[in-house]
Amino acid sequence: MERIRCEALKSKIMSADEAAALVKPGSVIGVSGFTAVGYPKAVPMAIAKRAENGEDMHVTIIAGGNVGDQLDGSLARSGAMARRYGFQGNKDLRKLVNAGKVQYCDVHVSHSPYLVRNGYFGKIDLAILEVAAIREDGSLISSMAAGMIDVLTEYAEKIIIEVNDTIPLSVEGFHDLFLLKRAPNTQIIPITSAGDRIGTPYAACDPSKVIAVVKTSLQDLNANLKEPDEDMKKIASYIIQFFKDEMKAGRLPDPLPPLQSGVGGVANAVLEGIANSDLENLSVYTEVMQDAVLSLIDSGKVKSASGTALTISPDRREELYANLDKYRGKILIRSQEVTNAPEVIRRLSCIAMNTAIEVDLAGNVNSSHVNGTDIMNGIGGSCDYTRNSGISIFTTLSTAKNGTISCIVPHVGHVDQTEHDTEIIVTEQGLADLRGLSAYERADLLIEKCAHPKFKDELKAYVEKAKASGAGMHAIKVL
Amino acid sequence: MERIRCEALKSKIMSADEAAALVKPGSVIGVSGFTAVGYPKAVPMAIAKRAENGEDMHVTIIAGGNVGDQLDGSLARSGAMARRYGFQGNKDLRKLVNAGKVQYCDVHVSHSPYLVRNGYFGKIDLAILEVAAIREDGSLISSMAAGMIDVLTEYAEKIIIEVNDTIPLSVEGFHDLFLLKRAPNTQIIPITSAGDRIGTPYAACDPSKVIAVVKTSLQDLNANLKEPDEDMKKIASYIIQFFKDEMKAGRLPDPLPPLQSGVGGVANAVLEGIANSDLENLSVYTEVMQDAVLSLIDSGKVKSASGTALTISPDRREELYANLDKYRGKILIRSQEVTNAPEVIRRLSCIAMNTAIEVDLAGNVNSSHVNGTDIMNGIGGSCDYTRNSGISIFTTLSTAKNGTISCIVPHVGHVDQTEHDTEIIVTEQGLADLRGLSAYERADLLIEKCAHPKFKDELKAYVEKAKASGAGMHAIKVL
Repeated sequence: MERIRCEALKSKIMSADEAAALVKPGSVIGVSGFTAVGYPKAVPMAIAKRAENGEDMHVTIIAGGNVGDQLDGSLARSGAMARRYGFQGNKDLRKLVNAGKVQYCDVHVSHSPYLVRNGYFGKIDLAILEVAAIREDGSLISSMAAGMIDVLTEYAEKIIIEVNDTIPLSVEGFHDLFLLKRAPNTQIIPITSAGDRIGTPYAACDPSKVIAVVKTSLQDLNANLKEPDEDMKKIASYIIQFFKDEMKAGRLPDPLPPLQSGVGGVANAVLEGIANSDLENLSVYTEVMQDAVLSLIDSGKVKSASGTALTISPDRREELYANLDKYRGKILIRSQEVTNAPEVIRRLSCIAMNTAIEVDLAGNVNSSHVNGTDIMNGIGGSCDYTRNSGISIFTTLSTAKNGTISCIVPHVGHVDQTEHDTEIIVTEQGLADLRGLSAYERADLLIEKCAHPKFKDELKAYVEKAKASGAGMHAIKVL
Repeated sequence: MERIRCEALKSKIMSADEAAALVKPGSVIGVSGFTAVGYPKAVPMAIAKRAENGEDMHVTIIAGGNVGDQLDGSLARSGAMARRYGFQGNKDLRKLVNAGKVQYCDVHVSHSPYLVRNGYFGKIDLAILEVAAIREDGSLISSMAAGMIDVLTEYAEKIIIEVNDTIPLSVEGFHDLFLLKRAPNTQIIPITSAGDRIGTPYAACDPSKVIAVVKTSLQDLNANLKEPDEDMKKIASYIIQFFKDEMKAGRLPDPLPPLQSGVGGVANAVLEGIANSDLENLSVYTEVMQDAVLSLIDSGKVKSASGTALTISPDRREELYANLDKYRGKILIRSQEVTNAPEVIRRLSCIAMNTAIEVDLAGNVNSSHVNGTDIMNGIGGSCDYTRNSGISIFTTLSTAKNGTISCIVPHVGHVDQTEHDTEIIVTEQGLADLRGLSAYERADLLIEKCAHPKFKDELKAYVEKAKASGAGMHAIKVL
């Protein structure tokens, strides 16, 4: 079936270079994509080429979530990017941010669309969007990642569309886009169950705003997930046991509330562990659906999974795309403002499971910085879920850098999640339930359950020193 | 009119000492009250007496918000309190918390009812509630503070009621209580405007759970608010100008979204400033309605104000109580889980205005600790509003301790609100709009606009040293 079905837009079909030539230096550009899926590729690379050829492009890029190297890497290396908002995961961009060469501002996943809508990022000069197809009326069939596509089509002044023929057309119907309106509008997001459909499968798009349509066949550059190892399996087993204990105690209902899971190998391993457990009748309400979500559906444990991106390892992608219909009606791809809406997360009492870089003795979590000074990727949606969930869980290995440093530390180098929001901390050593504990109780339990044995004495010594140092007993601090 | 109208409960009327004798040592007790209004007084003092007489009471107190000295002070000084959850503002309790003698866990205002409902604080053995009256069917007419009253009547095993005849009976009808149910229930909170009524004016209460009814005439011990001084007026004027500029730029709608305001003199002064400005057609959706909310209504600027407590200075209380009918239909007193619901705050795009103890160069805010080590009061609902609002504003004077220390600091001693959630910082020196800025841009602007002139050089020197020290440019840190 044809991918560009809107007559009015057929005349706008051009090469990526021609489209990039329409981009004004200094533009504020919003892009589609999430977790390195569904982001524009050809036009950003062509913009980078202009910078390489000596033009001062200094564009601002607003991304809803992570995007691949063809976008962030190209624009960063070429010097075309002056400013970047939202989660990033590109090594070259990260270097420039940490060197102060690209101005970076980390934004919650639920906030980016809010800020765009309400004009807090200024005028959005341009949206560059990757889609599966353009419908007769100009509306868009999104890629596997909805991200901010609906907000950008509505609020950007101009639009460039990349139509990517590697995206299976069978994705049509998987999306559920619900566009919130600018204040003072007040809308209820009427989701009361992970699988509720509340919107449309298409992003409305006014064809008169579209200045270019580019055909591409470039693949997403998301990475394969690491196979679960013994440590990851241990973490998963502690969480599963915790769920069972909580259900038994009547503090968690059976079946469990919808599961949210962060991004990466550990997060995926936890869900794989759940797929192999005897837990039943589960649902997923999350921002990113990784490989394990397919396992959960295949095992019959999950009937409904909802997220803003279906990010499947390249190794499994071909099989998925060939059999996508198997998941129709079971997977919903929503706009990120809805997947990460505080309203829905709290209402559903979601179980939030995210990964920490390090956790301190008070329970503060660092999700974004290494050495306390260098941004790694950003906070993503971890705060949206952690602070609004029914139960918040953080996982991390107890050590990093080949066991040479402890991930349970006296004080985190950067606070992304405060002690007020974190509840359950899990490492391969064990699980600490910090709910309702005072500061020193939390410290003792974290050391006992989560720290690696070789760092326990050092951490205990810090606690004793803090107690003796005269600081208030509500803060674990050596004066 | 009679205050105890339920026949079945007339036989339960007894003295505070008799009621306190029914309290088992080690009990987990939830109490009514918020911002030192509507908390039980006589029975806690009688429990304290038991401890003074040598009994080991070691009770746990769960409060939705601040309560007065008859409760926190009595139980703390007598040694009756072993553990305390939620905001506190009592100097004797604070001392014991900082000395490690009372185990304290600070909890978001929106979380306390959630944690009670879902059993995360364990079984609630007892609720002690202050009310204006008990209706024929046992249901309760709350005081001026609804707090957690509805959650406690539903989830506590037993209930002791203090019927306080200093609360005007005309408060009947001011309440709007909407009780959320335990997970897996999923309920929409259908508020789309500050004045929407969605619940009942009474808290349902099963008379068979009530073990004692105590008549009291003890007054709330909330404090008078400081008159706005020149510095507070300056802060208010910067905020008002900001609103006007944002409306002009189309980033804030006219009329403004509902206003939230924190507790205390500065917060009240900002609202008094707004009451005296030319802003019109305002509404208030907040947790605590202080004196200025009456001014806003009296001036005709506010048609609807909603909060969980109407906390009026003792000096103005008598006049208010005599003329309460003037505010009928204009003021709603809601349960705290609704006033602080992320869902409603985000939906209404509330403008959050809270007070900071100190702000750091990255934009992190400390709301709860002095010297980075001693808990002051707690976070209250500041995080609920800051992280879910349309715009978040923090106010603080630029210096503390008679001008000897700067409230703009390189690093806060305790992070309660992260740089990801804070947006606008205001001192008597000026207003810094941090939205969309990178780390060093934020630092420069905060120093320029908000720091006191006498600390500017020192702060600038820190920034230069951090830049030169080799730490990543996304964190302002001297290595």
